[in-house]
Amino acid sequence: MELFYSNDISGDLVRLNAEESAHCVRVLRHREGDEIAVMDGRGTLLWCVLEDASVKEAVARIVRREPGFGSHPYRLTLAVCPTKNFDRYEWMAEKATEIGVDVIAPVIGERSERKVCKTDRLDRIVLSAAKQSLKAAVPVVAEPVSVLDFIKSFSDSSSLPQSPVSSGASSDPSVGVLKLIAYCFEGEKVSIKEALEASSLSDVVVLIGPEGDFSPKEVAAAVRAGFRPVHLGTSRLRTETAALTAAESVYFKYL
Amino acid sequence: MELFYSNDISGDLVRLNAEESAHCVRVLRHREGDEIAVMDGRGTLLWCVLEDASVKEAVARIVRREPGFGSHPYRLTLAVCPTKNFDRYEWMAEKATEIGVDVIAPVIGERSERKVCKTDRLDRIVLSAAKQSLKAAVPVVAEPVSVLDFIKSFSDSSSLPQSPVSSGASSDPSVGVLKLIAYCFEGEKVSIKEALEASSLSDVVVLIGPEGDFSPKEVAAAVRAGFRPVHLGTSRLRTETAALTAAESVYFKYL
Repeated sequence: MELFYSNDISGDLVRLNAEESAHCVRVLRHREGDEIAVMDGRGTLLWCVLEDASVKEAVARIVRREPGFGSHPYRLTLAVCPTKNFDRYEWMAEKATEIGVDVIAPVIGERSERKVCKTDRLDRIVLSAAKQSLKAAVPVVAEPVSVLDFIKSFSDSSSLPQSPVSSGASSDPSVGVLKLIAYCFEGEKVSIKEALEASSLSDVVVLIGPEGDFSPKEVAAAVRAGFRPVHLGTSRLRTETAALTAAESVYFKYL
Repeated sequence: MELFYSNDISGDLVRLNAEESAHCVRVLRHREGDEIAVMDGRGTLLWCVLEDASVKEAVARIVRREPGFGSHPYRLTLAVCPTKNFDRYEWMAEKATEIGVDVIAPVIGERSERKVCKTDRLDRIVLSAAKQSLKAAVPVVAEPVSVLDFIKSFSDSSSLPQSPVSSGASSDPSVGVLKLIAYCFEGEKVSIKEALEASSLSDVVVLIGPEGDFSPKEVAAAVRAGFRPVHLGTSRLRTETAALTAAESVYFKYL
């Protein structure tokens, strides 16, 4: 089974872009009248009949819509500091997509050696991985922000009147998102498995630090914002392996 | 912390090979009297004092031995068909080592497109990954064999007088190894998580097929040999991602 991708949908008509059209018509030799499957990138699979087998802009008519195609029963945001060797980050993005992830958010830590992160290649990688693994939803690659800004955007109280936080203890994640931060230096932590099993929330955010780990300031800010410190077991994992292990732990909860 | 590797140990003396010696003495500038940590590749960390800082053959005296350094509480054999693009297999070997694996066994399936698999690069990759993730045991990369021969070697009855197997139902894995086979085509399967949780065995073998899946003949042979069919969830995973997911599932059982 081969999925095509289009975000150019109006009514019952789907247009494929030049690349997808060439693949459909020139490579796979589809002709008018053939049934093709097109994902809209947002979770719906469109079963279509090819009406115009143009190599440059193929057009197909939608016959049936299948929402939630290849979906997973959770929502996962992986906020991961870019790795020095960016191939490793791209690999992580591909694998997390295969497993099941909704948002990949590159975040820049105070100790990140890589301070920039181009997202256009990541966009192509997650689209390709989603097609390959038959998922009609393509993960969103967020614009890079600093770790502290990312935490702020997930803070319970960020858009509420400021309430004093008396201690570093994590606040009640009443907003409906289970927020986790994995770091390496010493501290009160539970295993990610335990944290996931203790929660009924299916909307999960996991923060994974750079090679040099998060700074204590970043961890403190995360804890104040309701992130629960977790560890990923006794193995010392590279950043990209830690991120994938976090994705797998959520996947396994629902397996 | 930096680990060196040596398998040249006699009494209390450890010799580093030329590559390790150069790294120790030329790159990291260790001198006589420095404490260095050497892994023996079989699970023990040797705390040593450098006695001869030779760039070609450094010699160190063992001060303390730490068995089980970076070990995991299970024994895992991943028998995985080589991927067409072998980079993906090498990546899997690296990541599985970080997570925790004991044997990586390349197995050639009837439907494998890649029929040969060179293990020397894999040996280097798992050694490097073990050092990087601070594990004193280096996974064994087995010599490639066919899937059917691999199954035979794990058959309950292979070294016993032949007993008739009445049906395709899996026999009691009384040999103390939990044997699992993951395949994609239809069949009676449980999730790998369920299979792991239902067993008290900590010695696990998982068979992962090639891009074109195992053949029905291979699956039947595996089931006759006591392998339990499992699935890895609803996501369609590439071979290397399936192998890593299997490793993670064992890791998570003990997290």
